[in-house]
Amino acid sequence: MPLSPEQEAEIADLRSRPLPTLRATAPGMEDHLYTAYPVLDHGFVRVVDYMGDDSAICQAARVSYGTGTKSVSNDEGLIRYLMRHWHSTPFEMCEIKLHVKLPVFVARQWIRHRTANVNEYSARYSILDREFYIPAPEQVAAQSVVNNQGRGDLLEGAEAARVLEILKADSARSYDNYQAMISQDGQQGLARELARMNLPTNIYTQWYWKVDLHNLFHFLRLRADAHAQYEIRVYAEEICKLVADWVPFAYRAFEDYRLGGATLSGTALDCIRRMVKGEDVTQETSGMSKGEWREFMGVLG
Amino acid sequence: MPLSPEQEAEIADLRSRPLPTLRATAPGMEDHLYTAYPVLDHGFVRVVDYMGDDSAICQAARVSYGTGTKSVSNDEGLIRYLMRHWHSTPFEMCEIKLHVKLPVFVARQWIRHRTANVNEYSARYSILDREFYIPAPEQVAAQSVVNNQGRGDLLEGAEAARVLEILKADSARSYDNYQAMISQDGQQGLARELARMNLPTNIYTQWYWKVDLHNLFHFLRLRADAHAQYEIRVYAEEICKLVADWVPFAYRAFEDYRLGGATLSGTALDCIRRMVKGEDVTQETSGMSKGEWREFMGVLG
Amino acid sequence: MPLSPEQEAEIADLRSRPLPTLRATAPGMEDHLYTAYPVLDHGFVRVVDYMGDDSAICQAARVSYGTGTKSVSNDEGLIRYLMRHWHSTPFEMCEIKLHVKLPVFVARQWIRHRTANVNEYSARYSILDREFYIPAPEQVAAQSVVNNQGRGDLLEGAEAARVLEILKADSARSYDNYQAMISQDGQQGLARELARMNLPTNIYTQWYWKVDLHNLFHFLRLRADAHAQYEIRVYAEEICKLVADWVPFAYRAFEDYRLGGATLSGTALDCIRRMVKGEDVTQETSGMSKGEWREFMGVLG
Amino acid sequence: MPLSPEQEAEIADLRSRPLPTLRATAPGMEDHLYTAYPVLDHGFVRVVDYMGDDSAICQAARVSYGTGTKSVSNDEGLIRYLMRHWHSTPFEMCEIKLHVKLPVFVARQWIRHRTANVNEYSARYSILDREFYIPAPEQVAAQSVVNNQGRGDLLEGAEAARVLEILKADSARSYDNYQAMISQDGQQGLARELARMNLPTNIYTQWYWKVDLHNLFHFLRLRADAHAQYEIRVYAEEICKLVADWVPFAYRAFEDYRLGGATLSGTALDCIRRMVKGEDVTQETSGMSKGEWREFMGVLG
Repeated sequence: MPLSPEQEAEIADLRSRPLPTLRATAPGMEDHLYTAYPVLDHGFVRVVDYMGDDSAICQAARVSYGTGTKSVSNDEGLIRYLMRHWHSTPFEMCEIKLHVKLPVFVARQWIRHRTANVNEYSARYSILDREFYIPAPEQVAAQSVVNNQGRGDLLEGAEAARVLEILKADSARSYDNYQAMISQDGQQGLARELARMNLPTNIYTQWYWKVDLHNLFHFLRLRADAHAQYEIRVYAEEICKLVADWVPFAYRAFEDYRLGGATLSGTALDCIRRMVKGEDVTQETSGMSKGEWREFMGVLG
Repeated sequence: MPLSPEQEAEIADLRSRPLPTLRATAPGMEDHLYTAYPVLDHGFVRVVDYMGDDSAICQAARVSYGTGTKSVSNDEGLIRYLMRHWHSTPFEMCEIKLHVKLPVFVARQWIRHRTANVNEYSARYSILDREFYIPAPEQVAAQSVVNNQGRGDLLEGAEAARVLEILKADSARSYDNYQAMISQDGQQGLARELARMNLPTNIYTQWYWKVDLHNLFHFLRLRADAHAQYEIRVYAEEICKLVADWVPFAYRAFEDYRLGGATLSGTALDCIRRMVKGEDVTQETSGMSKGEWREFMGVLG
Repeated sequence: MPLSPEQEAEIADLRSRPLPTLRATAPGMEDHLYTAYPVLDHGFVRVVDYMGDDSAICQAARVSYGTGTKSVSNDEGLIRYLMRHWHSTPFEMCEIKLHVKLPVFVARQWIRHRTANVNEYSARYSILDREFYIPAPEQVAAQSVVNNQGRGDLLEGAEAARVLEILKADSARSYDNYQAMISQDGQQGLARELARMNLPTNIYTQWYWKVDLHNLFHFLRLRADAHAQYEIRVYAEEICKLVADWVPFAYRAFEDYRLGGATLSGTALDCIRRMVKGEDVTQETSGMSKGEWREFMGVLG
Repeated sequence: MPLSPEQEAEIADLRSRPLPTLRATAPGMEDHLYTAYPVLDHGFVRVVDYMGDDSAICQAARVSYGTGTKSVSNDEGLIRYLMRHWHSTPFEMCEIKLHVKLPVFVARQWIRHRTANVNEYSARYSILDREFYIPAPEQVAAQSVVNNQGRGDLLEGAEAARVLEILKADSARSYDNYQAMISQDGQQGLARELARMNLPTNIYTQWYWKVDLHNLFHFLRLRADAHAQYEIRVYAEEICKLVADWVPFAYRAFEDYRLGGATLSGTALDCIRRMVKGEDVTQETSGMSKGEWREFMGVLG
């Protein structure tokens, strides 16, 4: 259970005091504010603040294009046009601030998205909690035999049990030793900035993460993708739900053009043109490598 | 007068409809929302949206420093500590979105601050208005004789009058010719993306500009500085007033540590140590060049 | 002619003194170093420095993927894989520094690409040269009737002549007045930072522009595109030629996957699947708007 | 010993084949190229590539300031002027690419500097080596009693020995278990992307890190500072030595204005003015808090 009763009470309190504002508000997002949505065994995602809504995207676009945008009949049409033509700046006019609790090895992937603002819990300054990610049995999978950076079949019973036993025991022992080293009970106590190095990367950390909608979509496209590691994908999927309620037009356009879309090479487009005309194109006649052709067949379903 | 009656009415309308929100609100900023504050002869600055307040800065810092920050007695003390020690990420947790109308030559300086989001009015897409910046007589100054990139004494009467006459006449003629070229009355009409090149850089443009508080402070430190060109400084000064009402603790810390502060070299600090001990340090014994010494004397008042 | 004899001599001199280095060198790029390639009537692009080559991209990828990349048979295959799967960081390991001379209205578009380093000639500090972009007759086109931000048919004779006459006369007069205002001959002379506002945006400026290969490709994809304004597209096309000689594998992958490729929505992919199976899909049965369908038909040729 | 004989041989080979280039070369840096300088017990820093030198900084500044910079007598004077006045863009014209091997907990701090390009060894893709950072005995220090995020006195004998024993034993056990889980000997073998979570953050990783000189100086100012954690400071100090040989003028200016300098608040400057005039200023009459006064006294030596 990721939240303590005190935290639940604090969230309920924060949610009970609406204030008047003249800013754009997104009713779909107000419903989510502060609530912590569980992810993995001890993690969560919650929205702490947001700026803008679908209208803010259009408003920014109309500053750029002036009267020219009158020909676009409505906001959703304009937003789809912007998404289709990679006009990214209007989407940058919306901003979201999330509070995320996540395992360190997930945080290490996440932080590679540089265009965002982050304040992370500091283990130099403070003591980390005893909370470790232990995969659910249905996630304990073998190394993929086709994908160097993925997982394949589930591990079979005894092997899976051994893995879970190791992860639990090593987490517990490393945390016991972390505590023993920093303890000031009868000894000086090791500096926290040193003791933390003994902790494995399945320990949980937390941060505030603030990002604009354009860069958030970029993050979601990569991390809600089927090729992303499961442990970060579940965060991305939870955020997708929040965004769908925040900026519904923009999210639907994102789903169609990015999540559900694909970028095809000139070679692939040429094959499609030939196939539509009825030609029977094969890998040998496609001009693609075997890997590309396999991926291309995947896109064509 | 920068605003039309329609625009004034639109602002009054926007300001008349408060909505409830659960987000952090800054009462000092709500008072300013949407209102256009005049700058120069046709420009303005207005806040279109904001995220966060002084508490949001502290909240983010406390995520990072955890219980360690309990020793700091209050929010203002914590904010001063963060500013003094260049802890920039908590300030990045606040965001502001401005609508600015400004001459193109000012926009060209402004855009060099890269860490911001911008949607500018497009003169490829739309027709620019006939609005040009003509300096007030008390701004028509000669090239500085001491500073290669500054202005010095006011121009004397006849010369100043000639300058204003030229700026007005050239602006008018270039705009007449812009209109004549794009007109579709009895002719095809030149493409707007070409015709715009005839317009001088004192024509006004406008944009939405969104930036986090840390980067805004960086902008303000450079552009509210006495060495900044007057025509951008007046925008920075107007924004300073807005920020002072938005995040009063952060703004006061910024005033003390950045606007009113100075960065001194190791050589300069050494001189100060000697001076405080009573030594009569001169440029010759300071280890500084003449230019550095002159600036150092300026800091020491 | 964009270069003076002094500049030509300086370039010849710079090109005559090779020095030994242990760094990666790209022979195709060494041939271009310092040479100014003319663009438009007075502009140019020239490479002042570069870092890395195709091998540097692979080297960086192999740090990331370790022994896993051994299965990829060769460098070009690996680079194509990286491009296809949007692995952008290895391309960031190459860097290029260009010296560009360009009209101010082109510079205003160009600078919107924020992830780059820029040093521009300062008209606060120095006096601009009397050099203006005047379009060649075959570029003097009417506003497009189908595209709000594009140009259409060529203007007919008399109208085109009038346009060129206006652009030349207004450029000349505004520069004469610029000179008259800053002159210190018998008068104080207006500050340069003020006088520059009288100059139209077809005046030339110049800058050093440094960017990594990933962000350069992003720039080129947008600006070498048929929808980009001609006056920036010719710069992008000139840079494409340089990049093709610098990192030939990466450039070929870029041509196939980006310049020649297209991103299709989920809806469009669904239509393609139906068409490949022999269904006769129309706009009405496609699920696309008229605009999307027209663009989709364009992609399908 | 951080390097294997194979790696030493590879470096010697890379250093034996100079090629001619027309680019700016920095002889002081050529001497360092490829050589791995040891840091901590298994880490290193080595320069893999660089772009530019002191002259490149001046060249970029002179593009901006044109003839105006003629008054500055020489390159070192100009570079000091640029550093003193926070003209950051000319320093961005130099770029460096490093190969760094470092513990994961150090990498986690380092990556927070966002304006850089990174390719890190992927533990999803490849198997990490059995190399862990174990502090030297003279680094095994207690939590500081004055600084929440620092270390204080050395731990006494028995306690220090216990700490080192724990760190070594936990590292060894976690790595043994990591190997046992991924082994495909008689079992399926856990996916690498899962198994890595069992490893503590004192395990070594490595990356290519590319950054411009302005942002590198920012990194070095924060991380070569006495308040930085020792384990990242030793990397920063090693890089300082490399930069001092690469761009000696810029590095000396950085040492004087940044490393050896200090930013003083308006309040502090006011105190200095009073002290120089002979007034005996105390904390009570300074207008500073106790914390600020203590730091101020530290600056005044």
